[in-house]
Amino acid sequence: MTVQLNQPITTPQGFRAAGVIAGLKKSGKKDLALVVNDGPRFDAAALFTSNRFPAAPVQVSRVAAADGRLRAVILNSGGANACTGAQGVSDAQAMAEQVAGLIGADVKDVAVCSTGLIGELLPMTMVAAGIELATAALSSDGGAEAAEAIMTTDTVSKQATVVSDHGWVVSGMAKGAGMLAPALATMLVVITTDAEVAPDQLQASLAKAARVSFDRADSDGCMSTNDSVIFLANGASEVAPDFDEFTQALEQVCVSLAQQLIGDAEGAEHAITVRVSGAHSEDDAQEVARSIARSNLFKCAIAGNDPNWGRVLASMGTTAARFDPDQVDVSFNGVRLFHAGAPDRARRDVDLRPFEVLVDIGLNAGDCQGTIWTNDLTHGYVSENADYSS
Amino acid sequence: MTVQLNQPITTPQGFRAAGVIAGLKKSGKKDLALVVNDGPRFDAAALFTSNRFPAAPVQVSRVAAADGRLRAVILNSGGANACTGAQGVSDAQAMAEQVAGLIGADVKDVAVCSTGLIGELLPMTMVAAGIELATAALSSDGGAEAAEAIMTTDTVSKQATVVSDHGWVVSGMAKGAGMLAPALATMLVVITTDAEVAPDQLQASLAKAARVSFDRADSDGCMSTNDSVIFLANGASEVAPDFDEFTQALEQVCVSLAQQLIGDAEGAEHAITVRVSGAHSEDDAQEVARSIARSNLFKCAIAGNDPNWGRVLASMGTTAARFDPDQVDVSFNGVRLFHAGAPDRARRDVDLRPFEVLVDIGLNAGDCQGTIWTNDLTHGYVSENADYSS
Repeated sequence: MTVQLNQPITTPQGFRAAGVIAGLKKSGKKDLALVVNDGPRFDAAALFTSNRFPAAPVQVSRVAAADGRLRAVILNSGGANACTGAQGVSDAQAMAEQVAGLIGADVKDVAVCSTGLIGELLPMTMVAAGIELATAALSSDGGAEAAEAIMTTDTVSKQATVVSDHGWVVSGMAKGAGMLAPALATMLVVITTDAEVAPDQLQASLAKAARVSFDRADSDGCMSTNDSVIFLANGASEVAPDFDEFTQALEQVCVSLAQQLIGDAEGAEHAITVRVSGAHSEDDAQEVARSIARSNLFKCAIAGNDPNWGRVLASMGTTAARFDPDQVDVSFNGVRLFHAGAPDRARRDVDLRPFEVLVDIGLNAGDCQGTIWTNDLTHGYVSENADYSS
Repeated sequence: MTVQLNQPITTPQGFRAAGVIAGLKKSGKKDLALVVNDGPRFDAAALFTSNRFPAAPVQVSRVAAADGRLRAVILNSGGANACTGAQGVSDAQAMAEQVAGLIGADVKDVAVCSTGLIGELLPMTMVAAGIELATAALSSDGGAEAAEAIMTTDTVSKQATVVSDHGWVVSGMAKGAGMLAPALATMLVVITTDAEVAPDQLQASLAKAARVSFDRADSDGCMSTNDSVIFLANGASEVAPDFDEFTQALEQVCVSLAQQLIGDAEGAEHAITVRVSGAHSEDDAQEVARSIARSNLFKCAIAGNDPNWGRVLASMGTTAARFDPDQVDVSFNGVRLFHAGAPDRARRDVDLRPFEVLVDIGLNAGDCQGTIWTNDLTHGYVSENADYSS
């Protein structure tokens, strides 16, 4: 099974989607997406941000997805509907009600996702007109337009599909270029499949896949109020897949989406993989990798093509992970720069001009490993986040 | 008692200092400082980085200061002598030995501090010549030059003095414009006093003062390998101060130095105070304040003069501090923007053009409070840390 990019979430049978212009974005670009599952089954799983200020749409969707059943997801960019009080919740609920009415579904079977500026109410007249438009535009070719409509500061839309040899397909779309963080990298993701999978198996499979994909993506250490991953399954292929094979396909889709997110993160000039091996535990490995991925000094150094291993050690030195500082190895793009407590090869031996950067840490303290994907801290990041409200 | 800036560490009686050019800095500026306590007493206290990769000078100074007695501190900029293996430790030891020989002290009574690029050995021939020069230049007027010689990317030197009504004085100097972080904000600090204070009281007083000064400064969340605060007391005033009054004076010096550091942090265009009140515990308050101070998105927003309270809430929402999200108040420069779970006054009512920014968080969960000082994340920060190795 291999991942195909640019294959939309309408690739699995029995899904329709649309992406339209509701007028929420000042740019005049597409800003409202609708994804509808036409059955025969309406199984669903979901993951949401663990932020203690969940946005209104997250509050509504969490309730909707709780019974493992969803018919549709309505998504908008151009406004997060977060920290908007009771009115915000009522607005998110109204979006679900309108969609339910138009497609003939129960309101409890519609999830809502929003992204954009926190703290502003959505212009509901525009949203309502957009939902009418989107419903009319629903099509089994509409996946790519939906992926486009959820973009904010993304420069490209993100899609991934895996087609199994057994007749079922898993597809996903994602948005998110800033605020990517752990415990669910901040993003909106919709995944569709025509495989026949019961809700508890769907949820188990999604949790497993998220652990090695979205949870590994940490762009800037910030956690959003709106993170949502919605997974819809309709069994239209009439094939009940092997759980492990299905999870593997889902993992491939999620890993591809997560890496596309990091590669297109705000201002990113390098996509960085921090890989920690030889750890006493996987948790230790992840803690070390994340401490490095969150160091602004390290991330600025990469932006400047500087293999600054001192900043790597300084970050590792703040963790409680089990390792002997004199037994740590640090390599940049395959060149070992620190070994046995002292400098090893020269920095100038490392070429950091390519987009992809691999930082390898050997802890020599065990057999476990961990990985975090991040990106560099650039002038572009500051510009995106200082000069525009989002 | 009030703090006087620009009063050097040679203001208390019985201290001499010097700042000279050893040639370690490519800029040709002063890069080596020596501070000598001429007695009659040689009491000392110290705090060091908790980083697990302590620099060679930290390893040497920790041993030297352990008995509460120091005669001198030798400091250099232009090289951190960190992660330099056995040779680095031997070099730091050699610096202490040379100073001890020249001033007629025991090698165990000399502390060493270094700052600059990690992972490079110091050019010891230059250092040795510089130590000769500095010793010859020692003077009771040399404090300001010493403060200058420890600067790296600092744009101004940092000094603070409190003169008590009882005849004793506390003075400090500091450097550090990046890598400022908690659990000892990353910096080199030397504090002198002619008060008569026993080592255990000195250490207790320093720990208390650091908690409300250096520990509150968090510029970029990164922790250095070289942080050192060295406190020298010689009793030359022949006055044994009241402990509380002495600690209060010391606190004033340390708070002033910490705020000077944050105000001059790399690229800072705003000095930000994040003040959390109404917390269930001081730890809760500090956790909330630190989570905000470490949000790159928040710090970029301030750089762009945007009172983005959504990013404040998103950061708070990642903490485990006790509060009800619907009972939180957020104010920027005295204007309340979020209240009772919903937006309050308009962002445009806040003027963020002044250098000083106050973010006030009311948790309404108790009577405790906490504060973190930080600065915004600017193009200047990225330039300093991407374009130059440090």
